[in-house]
Amino acid sequence: MPFSRRTLLGGVGLAGAGLAVASCAPSQAGAAASDTVPFYGANQAGISTDAQDRLAFAAFDVTSTQRADLVALLQTWTAAAEAMTRGAAVPGDSPSLEVPPADTGEAAGLSPSNLTVTIGFGPGLFDGRFGLASRRPAALQPLPALPQEILDDASSGGDIAIQACADDPLVAFHAIRNLARLGRGTVVTRWTQLGFGRTSSTGSAQATPRNLMGFKDGTRNIKSDDVTSLDQHVWVSDGSWMHGGSYLVARRIRMFIEPWDRDTLGDQHNVFGRDKATGAPLTGTAEFDTPDFTAVGADGSPVIPADAHIRLAAPENNNGLRLLRRGYSFTDGIDVATGTLDAGLFFISYQNDPATFVTLQRSLGTHDALNEYIRHVGSGLFACPPGANGAGDYWGRALLEA
Amino acid sequence: MPFSRRTLLGGVGLAGAGLAVASCAPSQAGAAASDTVPFYGANQAGISTDAQDRLAFAAFDVTSTQRADLVALLQTWTAAAEAMTRGAAVPGDSPSLEVPPADTGEAAGLSPSNLTVTIGFGPGLFDGRFGLASRRPAALQPLPALPQEILDDASSGGDIAIQACADDPLVAFHAIRNLARLGRGTVVTRWTQLGFGRTSSTGSAQATPRNLMGFKDGTRNIKSDDVTSLDQHVWVSDGSWMHGGSYLVARRIRMFIEPWDRDTLGDQHNVFGRDKATGAPLTGTAEFDTPDFTAVGADGSPVIPADAHIRLAAPENNNGLRLLRRGYSFTDGIDVATGTLDAGLFFISYQNDPATFVTLQRSLGTHDALNEYIRHVGSGLFACPPGANGAGDYWGRALLEA
Repeated sequence: MPFSRRTLLGGVGLAGAGLAVASCAPSQAGAAASDTVPFYGANQAGISTDAQDRLAFAAFDVTSTQRADLVALLQTWTAAAEAMTRGAAVPGDSPSLEVPPADTGEAAGLSPSNLTVTIGFGPGLFDGRFGLASRRPAALQPLPALPQEILDDASSGGDIAIQACADDPLVAFHAIRNLARLGRGTVVTRWTQLGFGRTSSTGSAQATPRNLMGFKDGTRNIKSDDVTSLDQHVWVSDGSWMHGGSYLVARRIRMFIEPWDRDTLGDQHNVFGRDKATGAPLTGTAEFDTPDFTAVGADGSPVIPADAHIRLAAPENNNGLRLLRRGYSFTDGIDVATGTLDAGLFFISYQNDPATFVTLQRSLGTHDALNEYIRHVGSGLFACPPGANGAGDYWGRALLEA
Repeated sequence: MPFSRRTLLGGVGLAGAGLAVASCAPSQAGAAASDTVPFYGANQAGISTDAQDRLAFAAFDVTSTQRADLVALLQTWTAAAEAMTRGAAVPGDSPSLEVPPADTGEAAGLSPSNLTVTIGFGPGLFDGRFGLASRRPAALQPLPALPQEILDDASSGGDIAIQACADDPLVAFHAIRNLARLGRGTVVTRWTQLGFGRTSSTGSAQATPRNLMGFKDGTRNIKSDDVTSLDQHVWVSDGSWMHGGSYLVARRIRMFIEPWDRDTLGDQHNVFGRDKATGAPLTGTAEFDTPDFTAVGADGSPVIPADAHIRLAAPENNNGLRLLRRGYSFTDGIDVATGTLDAGLFFISYQNDPATFVTLQRSLGTHDALNEYIRHVGSGLFACPPGANGAGDYWGRALLEA
């Protein structure tokens, strides 16, 4: 019996009663608009969308050398992502017991959970295998070597990235798993990352989540309704196939949690330039107070130290450069080499020029007091095309059908 | 500025206003009883407690050989777990900026999220280092070799296990991290496991979650309010230091997801003996219908196949043996050796005699049709003492002060 998530969702409420037999046809009937993010649009969802609670991220390498396979994959993936986004099962199910189900089923009965599925193309996709070398954006070069990084090839790079975000970990995992499955024969999974961020208990979407160092993270981030900043810093606007898209930078940032936990509270404040409890800059009293980078204390030294993280990252000190951060905390067990927790921040940023990230990271990587406690161990750069605009469209069509 | 989770939780609601300066004293004022599980009691919380959404699990090895260190650790851990369970910070904070904060802070502002923290003692704790050899329960022997297992030492065993469950992943992680931190010098972390189970979107606590094979998992499990079955199968009742405790079996069960996804729906039904969509046994129409293991089809063969998982696991076919399952799905990236997803079920069961698990696993491991798609790769057995009974008590006191 094939089934749709929607139909079963209705059935779950019938506590004690037999569940209704599920319909074969995915349906939007009963959709809770409050937990569905529209899939189609000029921009892909999952970039300026308010960050959901959970992340599942995967990077793939294309194993086929046929452009037609790549096009077919993108068409299939777009249709599947659109369906899953509205809480439906992966299309193509059959009433037959003699074939595998089209959908793996573990998200059946769950709501759409604000799922967004976002795709990006790595530099490698433009290496000539698919006739795309001439269409590679000038900005899409592999990132240069950066300070404070010791990159592991096993968690870096990839021809295609998929970012799935949802308020439910199973819904996010289900999306990645089913796209990987649909891609079999055309792509192989290169690496994956799970993350958790804004947590369900906080309630208000406006509360700034804390990172694993215990500090609020994202106070000065670009907000989803700040259209002016999004247009200025995030969306590509050049008339090319990337028009309406953005560049995704992913960095797996390992935190050295044990030495951090032995650091004094005062030093922790100085490392970030903020108060740990309230999130206020050291020159203010409330989280959203604007930092005063000129303030000096009684001893003549800056209140926000010269090497404080917020000073080095601030647009005021970087010619106005900004990027949209969308990071998630991760914890992946024990680092067996050291017996320490393998945990940290899976940093994701979106910007209309990857050079913005490079400039900021060079500033931070060289001077940031935080560097004693972190290391960049994974990296990826992906060009995220504009959104699909309707049922006939697919991710990357403007790139592939030119 | 040290801070308590409670105080900040109140502050978070003040959208747009400056956050109040946090109090130093943890306080239960404003506690939402609906998301707090009582810590003290005859049994430890986290065993018969309704399963929360998320799991963080850690196994530790004791590096000290001093019994006094072990006692001090258990006293410190009990106090910290009790505080975190009611949403307070780890005790011992100081207003000084010159010392490290007592609490790592990342869960500040979050609710208790139904956190439970449950401890168990592995067989190794009774090896003579701490003078406990004579107090080792006869039931606490290392598990024998079992079918279908290829165990990885890096995710097996341990002197002490901590199971933290909460409806928020950060709250569960925070508990494990802070206990590991408090244990430094006395224990080292041996392995950890994160899991996700009943997902927030399902709403009803009664809805049976699905495993990563897409099937409902737990339909016939012992329910939290079934006191008779808990007394009969879960709680130890022998007047020893384990009276009121239970034995925890942990098994990291890798699922071979890719071949499973290629299996036909009909075969998937036969492997479990249930309908994938509804969860009904193949002899019924609704999830909670009692399976009829005697029913035969038109061709004379059993409707629920002889090697179906539910047939082999059923109490009816195992002399009434039952255990309380409390498993969580996991996904831990890519198995680099095969390029497949490292995902599956972190099986946890509680029973008043580990022999129950051994008997059932021998039955399943030898015949179960599911074996084609799973392998046990991690294992642990732990004796969970009764609950702490008040502020003067601590985990394992009856064992250590006899």
